[in-house]
Amino acid sequence: MNLAILFGGASYEHEISIVSAITLKDKLSSLNLEFIFLDQDHTFYSIHMDKMDAKTFSTGAYKKFPVLSLEQGGFSQKGFIASKSIRFDRVLNLIHGADGEDATMASLFEFYNIEYIGPRKDASVMSFDKFMTKAYAYSCSVDTVEYELLSGQRKSKIAFPFIIKPTRLGSSIGVSIVKSAEGLDYALDVAYEFDERLLIEPFIKDVKEYNVAGTMTKDGLIMSIIEEPQKEEFLDFDKKYLDFSRSDKVNEADISESLKKELYAAFEKIYIPIFEGALIRCDFFVVDGKVLLNEINPIPGSMGNYLFEDFTSLIKYIKLPIKKEIKVNYNYLHSIRSAKGKA
Amino acid sequence: MNLAILFGGASYEHEISIVSAITLKDKLSSLNLEFIFLDQDHTFYSIHMDKMDAKTFSTGAYKKFPVLSLEQGGFSQKGFIASKSIRFDRVLNLIHGADGEDATMASLFEFYNIEYIGPRKDASVMSFDKFMTKAYAYSCSVDTVEYELLSGQRKSKIAFPFIIKPTRLGSSIGVSIVKSAEGLDYALDVAYEFDERLLIEPFIKDVKEYNVAGTMTKDGLIMSIIEEPQKEEFLDFDKKYLDFSRSDKVNEADISESLKKELYAAFEKIYIPIFEGALIRCDFFVVDGKVLLNEINPIPGSMGNYLFEDFTSLIKYIKLPIKKEIKVNYNYLHSIRSAKGKA
Repeated sequence: MNLAILFGGASYEHEISIVSAITLKDKLSSLNLEFIFLDQDHTFYSIHMDKMDAKTFSTGAYKKFPVLSLEQGGFSQKGFIASKSIRFDRVLNLIHGADGEDATMASLFEFYNIEYIGPRKDASVMSFDKFMTKAYAYSCSVDTVEYELLSGQRKSKIAFPFIIKPTRLGSSIGVSIVKSAEGLDYALDVAYEFDERLLIEPFIKDVKEYNVAGTMTKDGLIMSIIEEPQKEEFLDFDKKYLDFSRSDKVNEADISESLKKELYAAFEKIYIPIFEGALIRCDFFVVDGKVLLNEINPIPGSMGNYLFEDFTSLIKYIKLPIKKEIKVNYNYLHSIRSAKGKA
Repeated sequence: MNLAILFGGASYEHEISIVSAITLKDKLSSLNLEFIFLDQDHTFYSIHMDKMDAKTFSTGAYKKFPVLSLEQGGFSQKGFIASKSIRFDRVLNLIHGADGEDATMASLFEFYNIEYIGPRKDASVMSFDKFMTKAYAYSCSVDTVEYELLSGQRKSKIAFPFIIKPTRLGSSIGVSIVKSAEGLDYALDVAYEFDERLLIEPFIKDVKEYNVAGTMTKDGLIMSIIEEPQKEEFLDFDKKYLDFSRSDKVNEADISESLKKELYAAFEKIYIPIFEGALIRCDFFVVDGKVLLNEINPIPGSMGNYLFEDFTSLIKYIKLPIKKEIKVNYNYLHSIRSAKGKA
């Protein structure tokens, strides 16, 4: 399989996307890989495998690589005499945050008729916006933590301590835990800096968190082991950053069979309607024995490779949704013209 | 102002988009207009003003016009020797339904840094999906008709008669009124043909319907007169089609000042958070004196021109949202490299 890995993007998570791509270079080394870098000005570059290291990007050396443009069916590379078409079996969308997870890349790939692994447009918007995630979970009969939506207001009905989250940013950028009225103004300023709409959720001390990743393959839905991530109040940007370079196998969470079943059932309810074509990770909380969806990561750090036994086969056999074809026959325009007496 | 009007698209509403564009050619004749047609294969064509008629499209004659490609800042047209860049002040997205209203065009314009009039990505997905519209209205404190979401099921808890709607199609395609158990199977088959998720709503006989259009301009939010659309059980495709060529002024609905106020207030609540940059039309129901949002049209037929006194000025002064710039400084990659002892 010829797999192109697309990374970078005009996003706050630009750099962690580079780290994810470098991690996957090793994990997927048995496939024919090509690396396509999207810089912050939205230029695509074809990066040579041997130069897939941090230095190429931090020094700006990537600018010496060939520039690619989108065209129907793939990319093209300008040559001295003519353009060369560049084709792959599939592109893996590894752009975390804006561009990758906000429907932009999905739109581009669909518009240019390129097969891609990653969330589709509605799946992107649904998981990128934390409020829409709540509404979506509700529509799938999966519970979430209670919340309040603020759009400009500067107080919440939810009791301290609570968490403030911008509705539309990945990672933990702009997120604060507010323990008392004192810290509120500053936390609101920070969060409103990133988004006009904020989500307030009660801060649940010592909440149990479990992660499950999975994807639909030609052999059905494959789900990962269940991981209990290391305990921190919440992962800040630095910690999350390190998380994106993970490739060591983790240990399965030590939980009851019935809780496992519930977590897998909740993952399936979330995945089935709209996430086909993507490998996603769902982060769940368990509060008073109840499974609550916390977050959907439609492009998890380094694709959650460390959660799967045979990651390479999984990536190879992801099932992509079938596109409905719309055929225009101009019946209506013909009928208008005949009504007007024109042939 | 140089305004490009983009129409067509790979959508069930391809032909009504052509009709909308032809209508706007006359309504906006005092501006410098350019017409860009997107055919069902996603090729852009620059159509000469004099050929903006039904025949150009129904006969396939549009294929003789110059092909355009997207590039950073606008479009380019290939010439014999070199490519020519084509620039406008703004592009008006007039593609109804898929491509135009499903976040595809918004993504392309933002990716290629082109100023455009039309719904942004999240506004598109929110209004394209009828279930997400309900969730969004709820988040704006605007009421909607009660509903049930079906995903595969073939019965509803809502009593007959009810309406079945595919969640993600514009116009009235796939929509049926089901009066009794007899008609249910056929109506479900038709609707599931278009979407995996359906919305069921009680059919409210003789419901009062009112439409309001509006947009944010440099002088604030401008809202149209309130129209009471002509009564039909619901508009089928043919009737709606004719609606897209409307350009005659309508009469204002004969309603109380307090109801007017409520309708305008509801429009404002819906518009403000996410629709800046678009001229939208909200269709409201009034049931037992209560204002309920029925539908958001983020690209209404012929842009609802017939609802405004001075449509041309309105289009000229639409305020576009400011894009947040994301600057990547590679601090993280630098810090990794210094931790590893590399310069």
